Amino acid sequence: MEPTRKAHGEKETGRLEAFSDGVFAIAITLLVLDLKAPDVSVTGGSATELAKALLRQWPSYVGLVTSFFTVLIMWVHHHAILRNVCKTDAWLHFANGCLLFGVTFVPYPTSILASYFETPAAKMAAAFYAGTFVFIAICFYLFIRAAFREPLLSPDASQAFINKTCHDYMFGPPAYSLATLAAFLDVRLSLAICTILWIFWATTITKNTKA
Amino acid sequence: MEPTRKAHGEKETGRLEAFSDGVFAIAITLLVLDLKAPDVSVTGGSATELAKALLRQWPSYVGLVTSFFTVLIMWVHHHAILRNVCKTDAWLHFANGCLLFGVTFVPYPTSILASYFETPAAKMAAAFYAGTFVFIAICFYLFIRAAFREPLLSPDASQAFINKTCHDYMFGPPAYSLATLAAFLDVRLSLAICTILWIFWATTITKNTKA
Amino acid sequence: MEPTRKAHGEKETGRLEAFSDGVFAIAITLLVLDLKAPDVSVTGGSATELAKALLRQWPSYVGLVTSFFTVLIMWVHHHAILRNVCKTDAWLHFANGCLLFGVTFVPYPTSILASYFETPAAKMAAAFYAGTFVFIAICFYLFIRAAFREPLLSPDASQAFINKTCHDYMFGPPAYSLATLAAFLDVRLSLAICTILWIFWATTITKNTKA
Amino acid sequence: MEPTRKAHGEKETGRLEAFSDGVFAIAITLLVLDLKAPDVSVTGGSATELAKALLRQWPSYVGLVTSFFTVLIMWVHHHAILRNVCKTDAWLHFANGCLLFGVTFVPYPTSILASYFETPAAKMAAAFYAGTFVFIAICFYLFIRAAFREPLLSPDASQAFINKTCHDYMFGPPAYSLATLAAFLDVRLSLAICTILWIFWATTITKNTKA
Repeated sequence: MEPTRKAHGEKETGRLEAFSDGVFAIAITLLVLDLKAPDVSVTGGSATELAKALLRQWPSYVGLVTSFFTVLIMWVHHHAILRNVCKTDAWLHFANGCLLFGVTFVPYPTSILASYFETPAAKMAAAFYAGTFVFIAICFYLFIRAAFREPLLSPDASQAFINKTCHDYMFGPPAYSLATLAAFLDVRLSLAICTILWIFWATTITKNTKA
Repeated sequence: MEPTRKAHGEKETGRLEAFSDGVFAIAITLLVLDLKAPDVSVTGGSATELAKALLRQWPSYVGLVTSFFTVLIMWVHHHAILRNVCKTDAWLHFANGCLLFGVTFVPYPTSILASYFETPAAKMAAAFYAGTFVFIAICFYLFIRAAFREPLLSPDASQAFINKTCHDYMFGPPAYSLATLAAFLDVRLSLAICTILWIFWATTITKNTKA
Repeated sequence: MEPTRKAHGEKETGRLEAFSDGVFAIAITLLVLDLKAPDVSVTGGSATELAKALLRQWPSYVGLVTSFFTVLIMWVHHHAILRNVCKTDAWLHFANGCLLFGVTFVPYPTSILASYFETPAAKMAAAFYAGTFVFIAICFYLFIRAAFREPLLSPDASQAFINKTCHDYMFGPPAYSLATLAAFLDVRLSLAICTILWIFWATTITKNTKA
Repeated sequence: MEPTRKAHGEKETGRLEAFSDGVFAIAITLLVLDLKAPDVSVTGGSATELAKALLRQWPSYVGLVTSFFTVLIMWVHHHAILRNVCKTDAWLHFANGCLLFGVTFVPYPTSILASYFETPAAKMAAAFYAGTFVFIAICFYLFIRAAFREPLLSPDASQAFINKTCHDYMFGPPAYSLATLAAFLDVRLSLAICTILWIFWATTITKNTKA
């Protein structure tokens, strides 16, 4: 009975990973849909006008790059976490579902941020953007809590990786809350914190998977 | 001859699952495309205006959350059902196709519901929303009828799971029909039934896969 | 050397199938994006108005159903064909690429058909719709010509399936050409031929995979 | 310890490939979303008008075909490269991330090109289009530099393929830079260079994987 059950557990993680990969891949690709060809017909429509219009869209490019790499790093983390897990249960499915909800939501605040970056409402837009990552950071914390339980762990799970991850992820929600509050002082400060954080998560996962 | 045929059957279920996973993952991610950055330029465009505009979109958020978790639970059920199946045939492909049709359709009634939630047409929008789930519940019933036939069952299929699922799924179409009728009395009542139902399906699958 | 090469071939078919599955799954799900919440605010916006507006969208529903099941049946065929193939080469990649191009294109003529179904331009829209399937039918014929060559065939390929498929697929381009011409006589006739054809392809694949 | 580590490496490449396949498949399918049903109601809306309107959209079709096959050939290359790799590390993930960023970006310059093809701004649009491929060609070069390092290579990696690929990919960035500059002379020249280049990449991969 035991080998059958184990084989099932592995298969289940496989399909959970495949489904999650799909959601991450689609969410990351949908980000570009927010970029719309600018309409320069009203201003003569010369090559110079188009170049200017494309350059004026820089807040959209900043939002696209930040969101793209944040979602990409989330996927790398998701992947590294599930390498230590071989069974699934209802809690893991639920925590993963909340996390994926956060991931699919990212294109929306990205779009808000790009639309309002150069308006008086920019601070609120940046707070909404960073606030989304507070939600995702909380979901990630719940996700590792659900994943790193004894009955679900893979036989070759790395205890060092688990300890480091549980430690690092506690900083996620407060760090993004800081970025959310910073938005009301200065939009660029908030975005800078978000950028520093995804570079931090990228470095963290590189170190932790080596250890 | 027998091992070759069995290997083929397993491969076929694999690609059916992969394709279905893709459709579920895309349908669940497309839900967010219905959220559009609000246009507050006409009302001064201050930070407060944007915050108010974002809050005014709450019917869209309710629709997004309800549809996201309903589709997610459907995916978990789809996954649990196919764990008991190792071969496919034309009927299973057809029943799965109808089910996937229902799943890809979900973003449309969700969009209708969000657009009309605070208008006099809300009751019709909620009835259309719940009515879509009547269709999906019927498809799910056809799907398990097609999947749980002797020649397709996996050697280690759980008879207890099959019996419980066949029993539970009979309640799907009448329960969602009730939600559809309830929409004409009160929109919130209809949405509450839909929410209770996805929590019920989530609990059911947790119990049934344990059994 | 031989076993390594063979293992490579199998791996390559695997990724070709995974990529194609992804494209089919996305194309089939994007079809729903063409459905837009109707705007009934100008006509009072009552529940009855919304119901009428939703019913008036019936050409979109017809287009959605026809395209959805046509793409689904194409996927089942694609899948059945590649079960007989274990290696890939440049020609198979190219033929598959042309076929996937046709598949990703389907949402566009579907959208044209739905937009113009009740206008004087309906005949042209239906001809454009059926014409797309002429292109896809030609691509499918090139695809089986590329796939069913001796060096690519799997050791357990079914010669009966190959012969039947090569025979049946010759009828694809002329049958859809007939549907295209029929569009200029009567739009419903053209759509009826398209519907009969996907039912025919569904029946064919059921019979051929049994044989 | 060694076999466990190796098994992990293979699993990781698997999920990197699956995620990348998803992104390629979605980016290639989203290209069609830029095609919108033309609005001919203002000009009588006859069948002839619709036919003319569909023909007038030819710049969109040219952009769609060029981008579709360029992304498809990129996917074939990505696939052929990773067949020689069995482990992943942070650099490979980062280089792959930049490459996928370029791939998901393609629908945007394609849309710009189609919108401005017949306006005075066409030269700038074509330069933006070709310029995107300069970025992608640089990412591809970084990607093979990251992938073809000793510790990541698969035991059965083909040194001949690696040498040929490293040699060919050096021509990518200058060739697309030439196409970008050519755009300011003549838009058609720039597009012709882009088309010749994807045919060149298609031929290259066919030869190199045979060698």
